[in-house]
Amino acid sequence: MAEQKKRTTIVLFSGDYDKAMAAYIIANGAAAYDHEVTIFHTFWGLNALRKDELVPMKKGFLEKMFGKMMPRGADRMGISKMNFAGMGPKMIKHVIKKHNAMTLPQLIDMAKEQEINLVACTMTMDLLGLQEKELLDDIQYAGVAAYLAEAEIGNVNLFI
Amino acid sequence: MAEQKKRTTIVLFSGDYDKAMAAYIIANGAAAYDHEVTIFHTFWGLNALRKDELVPMKKGFLEKMFGKMMPRGADRMGISKMNFAGMGPKMIKHVIKKHNAMTLPQLIDMAKEQEINLVACTMTMDLLGLQEKELLDDIQYAGVAAYLAEAEIGNVNLFI
Amino acid sequence: MAEQKKRTTIVLFSGDYDKAMAAYIIANGAAAYDHEVTIFHTFWGLNALRKDELVPMKKGFLEKMFGKMMPRGADRMGISKMNFAGMGPKMIKHVIKKHNAMTLPQLIDMAKEQEINLVACTMTMDLLGLQEKELLDDIQYAGVAAYLAEAEIGNVNLFI
Repeated sequence: MAEQKKRTTIVLFSGDYDKAMAAYIIANGAAAYDHEVTIFHTFWGLNALRKDELVPMKKGFLEKMFGKMMPRGADRMGISKMNFAGMGPKMIKHVIKKHNAMTLPQLIDMAKEQEINLVACTMTMDLLGLQEKELLDDIQYAGVAAYLAEAEIGNVNLFI
Repeated sequence: MAEQKKRTTIVLFSGDYDKAMAAYIIANGAAAYDHEVTIFHTFWGLNALRKDELVPMKKGFLEKMFGKMMPRGADRMGISKMNFAGMGPKMIKHVIKKHNAMTLPQLIDMAKEQEINLVACTMTMDLLGLQEKELLDDIQYAGVAAYLAEAEIGNVNLFI
Repeated sequence: MAEQKKRTTIVLFSGDYDKAMAAYIIANGAAAYDHEVTIFHTFWGLNALRKDELVPMKKGFLEKMFGKMMPRGADRMGISKMNFAGMGPKMIKHVIKKHNAMTLPQLIDMAKEQEINLVACTMTMDLLGLQEKELLDDIQYAGVAAYLAEAEIGNVNLFI
């Protein structure tokens, strides 16, 4: 059955709120159209999967610094357009609410409900010093090999 | 006939002059190779489709602010590399002229002549408070569903 | 034989160290899985192919300025997250070393060993005033037409 299903894979590299929104909107749309969908979170895209509470954890100095510098969770992520910095994320969230659109955390919840595969790249977790306990529950862990195995049979493959 | 044609779809998310140039160069190349080509403009990519004159329009406060903060049309868009800021766009346009290459507005005109589908994402238009009168004539309006319907049969799908 | 091989093409537009790392990690992974792989370097992505020594060259004023403003080679490239600027590249290189991961120059060497096609976009070389002598040896030179010819039969096509 899985053989015939259309397939969408997205590498989410970016840690920007708006880019992650675009990734999750496309992913949720594809799942609604019955695609098998995977979002492979790597580098700053991992921030979308961080729990928003602080998870106390023994870490080396550099890992601690990365942990502090990187936003904890989708709701704290910044926006890609520099000139909007500061004001941008608030404005975006404000218009989202006003238009009854979905925020990034809501889009991530929807992705889980639609059984989209949310994957954290283990190699960059290692590099940035992120541990499984710091990330959302019910996600998957894999490397570039697993990504490629899906992408090579994918209909829509995007890098965001 | 359309069934056999190769197909290229590009999501233009970025509002950067240089990234939009890359998108339109690839799109025009694909059209020249007889691909059916669609550029789906979403988020800041919508700026490439804005008319350069000011279109007076009744808007709420936030929509007015977005309208003012976002560049009106392709020719006013900034460049992606921060360290070139200010100087960058002028230098790029200068070298384009010097090398008889095409500017972004010229690339957009060429895309229209080649009957590339220029699509504005209605959901993000709504979010950013952009209205049809503010965008170029002869473009199409659609949502993520229409994008996915094309991308899932696309040969080359890119997110820029 | 080449007909049956899976194929991955990556447009490397970005001049960011971390994005180029992601591109080369995916490319090297795909080559290890026996894909025919091409990285098409355009705009700021060309910096990854620059020799790190200064190559004396007669150039016009603008070309000289671009040459000075753009980093000479992979090792000098900056990082995509602005808030890490300055500190970011050093931290990334530090954790790479600590985790015995590969630096960007090492990833590029590996790509050459795996016979990944490293292509420089001639049109943007021309725009930015880069000449073949300034770029790494053993790379290829081509335009958007050659890229599209490969991408339209590609299994995994990404724009980074």
